[in-house]
Amino acid sequence: MKKKRLMAPGPTPVPPESLLAMAQPAFHHRTATFKELFGEVNQGLKYVFQTTNPVLTFASSGTGAMEGAVANTLCAGDTVLVVRGGKFGERWAEICESYGVNVVPIDVEWGDAVEPNKIADELKKNRDIKAVFATLCETSTAVLTDIGAIGAVVRDTDALLIVDAISALCADDLRTDDWGVDVAVAGSQKGLMTPPGLAFVSLSDRARKAMERSTLPKYYFSFRKALASLEKTDTPYTPAVPLVVALLNSLRMIRQETIESVLERHGRLARAARAGVEAMGLELFSRSPANTVTAITVPAGVDGVKLIGALEKEYGITLAGGQEKLKGKIIRIAHLGYCDDLDLLSALAPIEMAVNKLGHPIELGAGVAAAERVLAEG
Amino acid sequence: MKKKRLMAPGPTPVPPESLLAMAQPAFHHRTATFKELFGEVNQGLKYVFQTTNPVLTFASSGTGAMEGAVANTLCAGDTVLVVRGGKFGERWAEICESYGVNVVPIDVEWGDAVEPNKIADELKKNRDIKAVFATLCETSTAVLTDIGAIGAVVRDTDALLIVDAISALCADDLRTDDWGVDVAVAGSQKGLMTPPGLAFVSLSDRARKAMERSTLPKYYFSFRKALASLEKTDTPYTPAVPLVVALLNSLRMIRQETIESVLERHGRLARAARAGVEAMGLELFSRSPANTVTAITVPAGVDGVKLIGALEKEYGITLAGGQEKLKGKIIRIAHLGYCDDLDLLSALAPIEMAVNKLGHPIELGAGVAAAERVLAEG
Repeated sequence: MKKKRLMAPGPTPVPPESLLAMAQPAFHHRTATFKELFGEVNQGLKYVFQTTNPVLTFASSGTGAMEGAVANTLCAGDTVLVVRGGKFGERWAEICESYGVNVVPIDVEWGDAVEPNKIADELKKNRDIKAVFATLCETSTAVLTDIGAIGAVVRDTDALLIVDAISALCADDLRTDDWGVDVAVAGSQKGLMTPPGLAFVSLSDRARKAMERSTLPKYYFSFRKALASLEKTDTPYTPAVPLVVALLNSLRMIRQETIESVLERHGRLARAARAGVEAMGLELFSRSPANTVTAITVPAGVDGVKLIGALEKEYGITLAGGQEKLKGKIIRIAHLGYCDDLDLLSALAPIEMAVNKLGHPIELGAGVAAAERVLAEG
Repeated sequence: MKKKRLMAPGPTPVPPESLLAMAQPAFHHRTATFKELFGEVNQGLKYVFQTTNPVLTFASSGTGAMEGAVANTLCAGDTVLVVRGGKFGERWAEICESYGVNVVPIDVEWGDAVEPNKIADELKKNRDIKAVFATLCETSTAVLTDIGAIGAVVRDTDALLIVDAISALCADDLRTDDWGVDVAVAGSQKGLMTPPGLAFVSLSDRARKAMERSTLPKYYFSFRKALASLEKTDTPYTPAVPLVVALLNSLRMIRQETIESVLERHGRLARAARAGVEAMGLELFSRSPANTVTAITVPAGVDGVKLIGALEKEYGITLAGGQEKLKGKIIRIAHLGYCDDLDLLSALAPIEMAVNKLGHPIELGAGVAAAERVLAEG
């Protein structure tokens, strides 16, 4: 017997109670029953986004809401800054370019975090920049971006701060209001412990103001329509009801644990993961490690694709490999969402065994021991 | 005790087996497990669309795929014909207008079906029309459109035929290939007996050709990217895995019943519904009644909104009222998807009782008896 264990950065495991909640008989969404649960979901989303702004819910992957963030706040010909330090930063740029928005890229070595100064410099150089796009946790490199510092820089300009928090929400701190994040985008299948298929967008007053001048085409992802429906605890188009039901249960679990404790749990798991990796004699890939996901540089002589395959086949554990230019070069452990201390140890142990088996010597148990020491500190 | 019964035109009831399939532990979508089930889903979708064309799957409501159909095949400034005979025909026009596409509307009285001649006339008048938009079942009026006849008219022109089959797929016949439908759009939460949150699009060779000249902006709903992923039995962005799992089970049920039998079942239920309504002395609203949904004109002196409320409150049955200008004027019974003979009788009986109670006399049992006679014919 090999149990299946899922520790990739999304979709993440869903609590059985949330899974089973989806199995209740179908019901209509234009009813008091749905309004009541959707109302609670909307409050829960504000709680995890740490915002008093409205948070919209769409039936889509996170990318759909990213597109909405561009199409609803900008015009063709606008100029924006995009931090590109991985696959998801690049996605912001691609979306903007698809809509005829001029992208001034701030390119960052994969594995590094952007220096907020660079954003300040560009904003000084070009007073007409309409938005700054960043990524809270760049999942492809496990890099955490200092959104608080970027917010401090952007706050005094007319530019919007638009943040992809899809993987990081609930794992790395996102102080939407305190940091002046105008648009934050998230997805259901990460820290929110819900299956994939829902995307979320918070909108500040400044973002809602920008919507008024935006002339880019939009329909399904129209924030104006979604805001009008939200006023009536509704959605413009049929919501993905079972996913909303699962989300309600998972949000209740987060509320019960409190967002502060949830964030601290992710911090502890990430510190333990990093200590474990270093005790194995392996290298962390990210120079600004996130609490969402930990990336390990695959040691010379080991094929990262084979390693991921062996972990899956021999131990039943799904981790993530590298994407695009990092394919085969890193592996990524997501200690994300419905994940506790022993889950983390269950990810470190097979890495020790599998890397050894692929010819790179690791003292068995060394990583687990180091992680235990961090976890034991509490 | 009052059991809940759902007979609105979407979301529709989901078989318990499909609901429970969603409760299985989360698993990753870039795996052999997902590829195998998604491959079977893709084959099943072709089967129900009656097409050899590729059928794309998106995590979204049906409206998202409608937007994709516009954004992927047209350019700003193009001219198109849109049949507008209800809320959903109007939606095609709204989407086109959002993208700067010129709409030549073919307006049809709500309750009537378009005459294919009118489309032929417009196509002759304007050789530069790039697409004809129609709705297989206009859910807001319960009107069936003769897509076969429209296909025969459009086939000899350079225009694409783009059809909203969201509510009607599996309930009213859609011969995508035989009728020359270039783009057909569907949703999971209707005849496919799956929860809301997935949308589907079939693309003919002509549609894929049109994609090459389209310059409208798109990203999440990019058909080009979705087609490239489909080649690898994959999706460009994280799919809504549990909904795909539920869909697989429901598609297997449809295959087992066969699409011909599924369509005949919907035909029989619709005939029985219509006979029942007429035997109650009530009037059918649609002059071209669909097999997806039956619309009843609320008799003078009865408030349709109150009637829907009473049916819900007294009998636990969810039917749909009228939308927009039909609010309060019609009620709609969806005999759609996971619905059998006795479900239909369970919808007619409370209508008899509730209409009576609201002051319009109906001979109790008359509608049910007439429906039984149709059903007994087999």
